[in-house]
Amino acid sequence: MVINGVEIENTFAEAFDMKATRIIITAINFKWARHAAVTMTGFATSVIGCGVEAGIERMMHSDETPDGRPGVAVLLFATSGKVLTKQLETRVGQCVLTCPTTAVFAGTEGEERIPLGKHVRYFGDGYQVSKIIGGKRFWRVPVMDGEFLCEETTGKTQAVGGGNFLVLARTVSQALLASEAAIDAIYHLPHCIMPFPGGGVRSGSKVGSKYKGLFASTNDSYCPTLKGLKGSRLTPDVGSAMEIVIDGLTAADVKHAMRTGIHAVCSLGTAEGIVGITATNFGGKLGAHHFHLWEIMGDSAGT
Amino acid sequence: MVINGVEIENTFAEAFDMKATRIIITAINFKWARHAAVTMTGFATSVIGCGVEAGIERMMHSDETPDGRPGVAVLLFATSGKVLTKQLETRVGQCVLTCPTTAVFAGTEGEERIPLGKHVRYFGDGYQVSKIIGGKRFWRVPVMDGEFLCEETTGKTQAVGGGNFLVLARTVSQALLASEAAIDAIYHLPHCIMPFPGGGVRSGSKVGSKYKGLFASTNDSYCPTLKGLKGSRLTPDVGSAMEIVIDGLTAADVKHAMRTGIHAVCSLGTAEGIVGITATNFGGKLGAHHFHLWEIMGDSAGT
Amino acid sequence: MVINGVEIENTFAEAFDMKATRIIITAINFKWARHAAVTMTGFATSVIGCGVEAGIERMMHSDETPDGRPGVAVLLFATSGKVLTKQLETRVGQCVLTCPTTAVFAGTEGEERIPLGKHVRYFGDGYQVSKIIGGKRFWRVPVMDGEFLCEETTGKTQAVGGGNFLVLARTVSQALLASEAAIDAIYHLPHCIMPFPGGGVRSGSKVGSKYKGLFASTNDSYCPTLKGLKGSRLTPDVGSAMEIVIDGLTAADVKHAMRTGIHAVCSLGTAEGIVGITATNFGGKLGAHHFHLWEIMGDSAGT
Amino acid sequence: MVINGVEIENTFAEAFDMKATRIIITAINFKWARHAAVTMTGFATSVIGCGVEAGIERMMHSDETPDGRPGVAVLLFATSGKVLTKQLETRVGQCVLTCPTTAVFAGTEGEERIPLGKHVRYFGDGYQVSKIIGGKRFWRVPVMDGEFLCEETTGKTQAVGGGNFLVLARTVSQALLASEAAIDAIYHLPHCIMPFPGGGVRSGSKVGSKYKGLFASTNDSYCPTLKGLKGSRLTPDVGSAMEIVIDGLTAADVKHAMRTGIHAVCSLGTAEGIVGITATNFGGKLGAHHFHLWEIMGDSAGT
Repeated sequence: MVINGVEIENTFAEAFDMKATRIIITAINFKWARHAAVTMTGFATSVIGCGVEAGIERMMHSDETPDGRPGVAVLLFATSGKVLTKQLETRVGQCVLTCPTTAVFAGTEGEERIPLGKHVRYFGDGYQVSKIIGGKRFWRVPVMDGEFLCEETTGKTQAVGGGNFLVLARTVSQALLASEAAIDAIYHLPHCIMPFPGGGVRSGSKVGSKYKGLFASTNDSYCPTLKGLKGSRLTPDVGSAMEIVIDGLTAADVKHAMRTGIHAVCSLGTAEGIVGITATNFGGKLGAHHFHLWEIMGDSAGT
Repeated sequence: MVINGVEIENTFAEAFDMKATRIIITAINFKWARHAAVTMTGFATSVIGCGVEAGIERMMHSDETPDGRPGVAVLLFATSGKVLTKQLETRVGQCVLTCPTTAVFAGTEGEERIPLGKHVRYFGDGYQVSKIIGGKRFWRVPVMDGEFLCEETTGKTQAVGGGNFLVLARTVSQALLASEAAIDAIYHLPHCIMPFPGGGVRSGSKVGSKYKGLFASTNDSYCPTLKGLKGSRLTPDVGSAMEIVIDGLTAADVKHAMRTGIHAVCSLGTAEGIVGITATNFGGKLGAHHFHLWEIMGDSAGT
Repeated sequence: MVINGVEIENTFAEAFDMKATRIIITAINFKWARHAAVTMTGFATSVIGCGVEAGIERMMHSDETPDGRPGVAVLLFATSGKVLTKQLETRVGQCVLTCPTTAVFAGTEGEERIPLGKHVRYFGDGYQVSKIIGGKRFWRVPVMDGEFLCEETTGKTQAVGGGNFLVLARTVSQALLASEAAIDAIYHLPHCIMPFPGGGVRSGSKVGSKYKGLFASTNDSYCPTLKGLKGSRLTPDVGSAMEIVIDGLTAADVKHAMRTGIHAVCSLGTAEGIVGITATNFGGKLGAHHFHLWEIMGDSAGT
Repeated sequence: MVINGVEIENTFAEAFDMKATRIIITAINFKWARHAAVTMTGFATSVIGCGVEAGIERMMHSDETPDGRPGVAVLLFATSGKVLTKQLETRVGQCVLTCPTTAVFAGTEGEERIPLGKHVRYFGDGYQVSKIIGGKRFWRVPVMDGEFLCEETTGKTQAVGGGNFLVLARTVSQALLASEAAIDAIYHLPHCIMPFPGGGVRSGSKVGSKYKGLFASTNDSYCPTLKGLKGSRLTPDVGSAMEIVIDGLTAADVKHAMRTGIHAVCSLGTAEGIVGITATNFGGKLGAHHFHLWEIMGDSAGT
């Protein structure tokens, strides 16, 4: 398949079942809500090393938030509900409870609940006060700038992690600018995040390593300095590759984000050094979700 | 002591011996160097919950960095060299190795070295290449956008964590604006960081809790909603308090930052609702460093 | 009328009939579309000294813009169609034509048209090429980075300039933080801009001056340092006042923005030093639009 | 001359004598000082259409500014002292006087003075108060948030406008990324600004036009879509060109900035699609300053 001269490989992105939640952090203004959100979603690029993958979903205006203040919606993804629960609690305690003027609310409904303020409230040393509004329990915890208001629980939901595509370009500048275009385009979509730094990742990995005890290592088939290797998947004109990884609340969200990002890259086209689009998978046996590029981009074919 | 009408309490900030390191992250431009730095210093507000306290020290121009590209200097502080080593390795692997176009270098000299690229290099699956320049070893690890260049080790140094002062104001707006002024003023100082979200913290803590298993709980003496308690340290006119916490490479760096920040707050004065400045300590037996406010601000007295 | 303890004065904002247009600036990414937009809407705070009042209305995603690239919607307001035409042409020529990778499109429909690329095209020195798509004429002007694409005309529409309200607070910090809250809240509303620096203005003016040749001078009735004057409108507890000025495409847009901003201020309340809300008028004979605060905030009374 | 594979053309940038001034805008914090500075330096890309070329030189910390508050240094350049005077006065009146919490000070010393607050003070309607400190006159003008403090005059100095160089690259992405690298590198240098949007310009011009009354038109020799023309200066491999324009207080400042920027571009090299560096001149008879690329880059030759 070819879009605007760019070859779309007949392959698929392999993604995984995850557990996810959304929380809403509000503050006296966007600046401080964002400080809390950026801090709590830092060091959250990959479940393997960070425990959780997290990011800002979107800014929320005061007419959309539970307490009528400016807010930020944050999404967190983990491999199990247990890890998600632990990471959420620690990160809220370290990065939201501490942040001037913030409050935190559930951003996901549903029957499966995990603690949000339930344990954090004990920071109040007995001075915390419970309040039930509309059937939901909230805690008011005395802190130095006044009170930290937090909802007792938030919802936990099934989700999808590791949707992805790769941009293959002639040079680093071109791969980078095209990746930025994709990131800009995906950034405003609801229900998904791009957990890696700035939304991009350049250290794609394969399963296994020649070193014992390492589960993963560089994806040598896609390293431009290793094009001389037998298994290299890069054609001579590819000088740089970058990947966009997407976590979404549903498979449909991930597909939509992949489609949006690939379109943004392809619109730059061969004139801007874009050679091809591919995706990362591990043979198909590890992840429950297979996102086939040709299916996702089907109706754009031949353009 | 009174500065511009603001009461400086005769007390001290109690700070701790830490181990620290500086690394330099470079990239094709500031945008991507900063993405890596922000991501790797996220979730690093307090050693207790995050393992490490970290932050951006400053931007570095291309004429200052080892590879002549734009860069960011990052400082990391931990309670032991062992924890520092582990955190550095994990965070570089998750947040710098992954970030498009970055490289990473030692930012601290000295004989005590900890691994920087030493283990991360194994990601290269045997394709990594060593290079010695000027007596220092570097690794070139093949990745999808080209190569990840990393220095083998960085220096480890003695440091000071937990320098602090508290802003006592009539209202939240006033405490917040004054804290922002202090944060703006401290931000550009070398050799120190403010690890909490946006540089401020409102959940000051005391040692111990009425709940078993909790080591710390809300500093009730400084909570405005608990002014009715016997032990409250807040006068009736204080409606909000915020703390600035500073980690620095030396005691002198912390002192200078405290002095700079306190001056910025006091310059707003009682006219802007600033009532007093105090500091957090735990009786003086936990921390090796006692930063006395009157000593630090001595020559400003009576202004 | 009182909202959350804040006195809403029984007065009105006096606003004026204006001519306005919207243009859409696109670029290879948001960064460069925004550079063009920020530059072209600079020095555009007041029609009196700048000729035009202009600002960014909102970011536009690639699925919303005429050429499928990221974009920025810009609104411009002037006292006559003639001035609007002149300012638009000069600013597009100086700040958009010059800006790497940009294109510019009409953002307002309607029968009344003013030149957008019509004259700017002559920069092409005869090498420009016309193209008609869907009944609209576009010009492709050769420039160093490729081509500057511009639509021939944009729509001109009736509009309203000078909607406003004043925040009266005890101190500068409180007036500023409350103004920022209002600006944050209004910023995301469509069809309007706040033309002054950062959205706020502190140099309110009255008609006339003791100096000949000056049409306007400081609004002494609202200057806190002149509270001793007979005509002062400030009560003893007001230490600082700031104004939010709003230009909108319709009176309804201005009203909605005023209401949104006033709510944001009042939600901070007397606890945060907010004393009152008032508005600027010139006796009612200069401007065609009178926005009465009590009418706008009517259903919030007594809360 | 060749640097890192990039051809440096044996030509010169032609620059002009200008009059310049520096002012220092301070505010309660960086945010608001920057709002004033960004607004007052908007629509100031070229003296031809905007009257003045202006930009932010750098942020100034509170220990560097006259009133001990955070500040921004702004540089303004015009073709005559008269125009400079007029533009300064209007822009300060519209964009600084109006901006919450700001004050404005001279940033240039010397005997030749132009009015800064001298006329703006009449906005005070007779309530303004003069104050002489250290031999300098200041005005305190009552406004709604308190007082606007402004120094009576600022210095006027000889300066140089229109230093420049052109980046020639294979594609738009590459020209853009290399231009951004140059802009990042030049941005932190003192005594100079890049007046065009975001620091870059793509609509280079030649003197004259086939249309009467137009003084300038597209520089067709450097338009990639006009490579078929006889006079094209672009080789077949150049697909996009971008220019960086620099105004500096002295010729040495401009040279240093050109050198810094060209180095940043060349460090990306042919591997990133950079083909060459050239400069814009008008035959050498219009401008008093000729900046020869080979002289400026001399000691980098052959690298």
